[in-house]
Amino acid sequence: MATTFRKQRQSVIGLFRALNTEAAAVPRTRPLYRRIVELIERGVVRGALMPGFRLPPERELASALRVSRATVVSAYRELEARGLVRGYVGRGTFVSASTDGNVPFAWRGKISATAIQTTDSTLRELVRHAADPKIVSLAAGEPALDLFPTEAFRAAVDDVLTSHGTMAWGHAPTEGQGLLRETLARRFGGDPGTILVIAGAQQGLDLLARCLIDRGDAVIVDRPGYLGALQSFRSAGARLFGWDVARADMDELEDLLLRYRPKLIYTNPTFQNPTGVTLPIRARRELIELARRYRVPIVEDETYCELSFGPPPPPALNELDEDGTVVIRVNSFSKVLAPGLRLGWIGAARPIVDQLAMMKQQVDPHTQNLVQLVVSRLIDGGMFDRHLVALKGEHRRRRDAVVKALHKHTPTGALRFSVPDGGLFLWCRLAGEVRARDVQERALNDSVFIVTGEPFYADGGGTRELRICFTTKPPDVAAQAARVVAASVVSAMRQAIRAEPISRIV
Amino acid sequence: MATTFRKQRQSVIGLFRALNTEAAAVPRTRPLYRRIVELIERGVVRGALMPGFRLPPERELASALRVSRATVVSAYRELEARGLVRGYVGRGTFVSASTDGNVPFAWRGKISATAIQTTDSTLRELVRHAADPKIVSLAAGEPALDLFPTEAFRAAVDDVLTSHGTMAWGHAPTEGQGLLRETLARRFGGDPGTILVIAGAQQGLDLLARCLIDRGDAVIVDRPGYLGALQSFRSAGARLFGWDVARADMDELEDLLLRYRPKLIYTNPTFQNPTGVTLPIRARRELIELARRYRVPIVEDETYCELSFGPPPPPALNELDEDGTVVIRVNSFSKVLAPGLRLGWIGAARPIVDQLAMMKQQVDPHTQNLVQLVVSRLIDGGMFDRHLVALKGEHRRRRDAVVKALHKHTPTGALRFSVPDGGLFLWCRLAGEVRARDVQERALNDSVFIVTGEPFYADGGGTRELRICFTTKPPDVAAQAARVVAASVVSAMRQAIRAEPISRIV
Repeated sequence: MATTFRKQRQSVIGLFRALNTEAAAVPRTRPLYRRIVELIERGVVRGALMPGFRLPPERELASALRVSRATVVSAYRELEARGLVRGYVGRGTFVSASTDGNVPFAWRGKISATAIQTTDSTLRELVRHAADPKIVSLAAGEPALDLFPTEAFRAAVDDVLTSHGTMAWGHAPTEGQGLLRETLARRFGGDPGTILVIAGAQQGLDLLARCLIDRGDAVIVDRPGYLGALQSFRSAGARLFGWDVARADMDELEDLLLRYRPKLIYTNPTFQNPTGVTLPIRARRELIELARRYRVPIVEDETYCELSFGPPPPPALNELDEDGTVVIRVNSFSKVLAPGLRLGWIGAARPIVDQLAMMKQQVDPHTQNLVQLVVSRLIDGGMFDRHLVALKGEHRRRRDAVVKALHKHTPTGALRFSVPDGGLFLWCRLAGEVRARDVQERALNDSVFIVTGEPFYADGGGTRELRICFTTKPPDVAAQAARVVAASVVSAMRQAIRAEPISRIV
Repeated sequence: MATTFRKQRQSVIGLFRALNTEAAAVPRTRPLYRRIVELIERGVVRGALMPGFRLPPERELASALRVSRATVVSAYRELEARGLVRGYVGRGTFVSASTDGNVPFAWRGKISATAIQTTDSTLRELVRHAADPKIVSLAAGEPALDLFPTEAFRAAVDDVLTSHGTMAWGHAPTEGQGLLRETLARRFGGDPGTILVIAGAQQGLDLLARCLIDRGDAVIVDRPGYLGALQSFRSAGARLFGWDVARADMDELEDLLLRYRPKLIYTNPTFQNPTGVTLPIRARRELIELARRYRVPIVEDETYCELSFGPPPPPALNELDEDGTVVIRVNSFSKVLAPGLRLGWIGAARPIVDQLAMMKQQVDPHTQNLVQLVVSRLIDGGMFDRHLVALKGEHRRRRDAVVKALHKHTPTGALRFSVPDGGLFLWCRLAGEVRARDVQERALNDSVFIVTGEPFYADGGGTRELRICFTTKPPDVAAQAARVVAASVVSAMRQAIRAEPISRIV
């Protein structure tokens, strides 16, 4: 006790000594707590008090200065607010790191808790590499953009600017341009009031996460599932539980519903991202039945439903949900026209469209007019459907080229995948001890970028899986890139075989 | 006590009677709690248990059925999850409203707490009325869109599509197209790495709110201030405190900083929305000095800084912040080109740009490419500057027309406003007991829409104020609309004078 007391006295004396030359500079007319603040501030700024200097305990300083403890507390709080000192419970108050001009404003300390959790940059890496001309990316999901109907688009821009005048330039309803909402309702069913136009599916998922999820809510997601959706739900504070969409075991889903009481079920039922799997009609009906019974909304991501080059896939969940009450459908033009356009839509019951629009007004008051009017024209004029036919034919050729190259250049069993009749993705499982990250790194060394399975799992997994987008490059380039992937698999396998005995010894 | 017991017994008997005919239908092989659930579910669905029927207390039912209380608790929770019953603490568990097909899925109960708070639809009303051809809107802030350089825009679209090929269609970096970031850095200073391209200022404010604000944080905002910013911060859970930007009293600001320890200061220093006020250079320097001292970031909304038709306004805060560390600048092309384009940018220290980009990837992975490339070309080719000159000249004519009409058709003192040399807005104070809402309603009856002051105040006020956007309509139409506003003021004044004695008697 005596030692502690002596230490504290010394600490006060230390402070007084350090600030001796500063004291004269601080006018005595100021309120007491301000004088303390200024004294210490001067000391810090002029280097008399170095970073890490421990200030005297509040009680001690108060008694030495014959002021109330509250005065010292105020002064310390003030110094802390100015970033000059930092208090640690049970340890004391210390002078912070130097504050001279070279030290950046301490941004890190100002970031919100939500933002600090937002550290997965997979999506950003994907779009960055996709835009890098030096890399052949089979990573980001893009359709055959070289088939984009540029001339039809240009003509539609001209038409819109000529016929709709300033409609393209002004503010527009948050829900979307009436013309496009009508076009979408005609094409996909429902009425225009149940459609919200958005700047791409990702914005839709973000709006849904913000409108439906409270921190701590459970959400059931595809396992594996679209990583952008996982990010949106996670960032809204959801606890994610995976449901294996390929097995589509309804008892398992019911168990999850009973156990976690989720706020919503997110699924991508057609040519699923990342697996390429399509949920059969019976499973779709059962899913809706379960959702109704447990009163859990389904968020259905139908981004790939128009990209079948085989038999037509089953109807979307929201088409099977006859009352239109339990399914919220998210759609995008990114995979049927171009991701650069930033255009998508949500189909849902009116109360949900209304709530989402209320949220959207504050996030992005409306979606760009020109692209809405142009796409509406492309659909109504038949150019969109003609483009889809060409796109699907080309996608089939690219899929065949990639599949052939992978089969040819990997040993049997090294890379297992099933071949989907649509969508954009091949989902590949690596054999044995081969790590997907290892394959990814080797391929990137040869300027080919693919994604590993991990980010698609909400609850672990995917270390032996790879997603390959087969649609981005012309057949010859795609085949060549697939060959690089195959070679990377083979060399990663050799490495794994060599490494194995060592790991067993260790 | 005895009465209570009797009541409870009766309640169990009531349930058993109601479910007598259902019991046979539920197989005895199911787990006990499931049997209870199914029995009650059947009862509800078939109408034997009507909405409002009070289920027996859990303990009572458990003892009557000779099962553990936990079993009944599980069953009730299950029924509640299915939306069939609803428990109220201290009151019991009741059968919910009917669940037949006509009743919409209970969406309201599924909305997140954040979304339920998002009920201010002012912004949405603004954009809706602005797009309605039957209404002359002086409400939404829009520049003279009839001057939009449509031909230059069309030519730039052609150029971009010809020279940049698929760059417009593919994925692009979240931070923005390199070409546009370089153009912006050349025009506004800084380097491209400190610029984040966004889909309009509102998206920027939302990203900033999400990256910087934790629920309960204090934020200082202009009083009155831009309503979209207030909404974004409020929706992130901020407590808002207003600072009178027109008075620009720095002692008051310092008091606010000391008292509330805010997470950030939001201000719109040039031709402020809604007041039209511009913060003088000295106040700007002091503001930065205070922000530095208290280590509080400034979010500066510089949407109107290029819209002066008088002497040039002082430099932006981020230009005065020489280290570039304390000011985050939000900008938009909505008021200098067109809001329909959805294009803006943020200038900030790299760590902030990085954090914001991480958040943006999950909200809207990148801004539309075509508009980025086209606007970059319009700036680099000089078309943008030529447009600005024309725009400002026209804005001055429109301002003069509106000011003249208001002066001419309102009695002296009925509507006080100062006349800004730029921006888009006149901020008008009504005399005496005249309510802004009353004037707004009268004007809307004559198809002219203006906004009242309330939504611009974070902490009450604005009931006697009106914001008039003077730039949207050609001088003659604007003058005519201003005349309608003036007439509405006059008739609201008469009403107020007539109403006064009555309200005094009551």
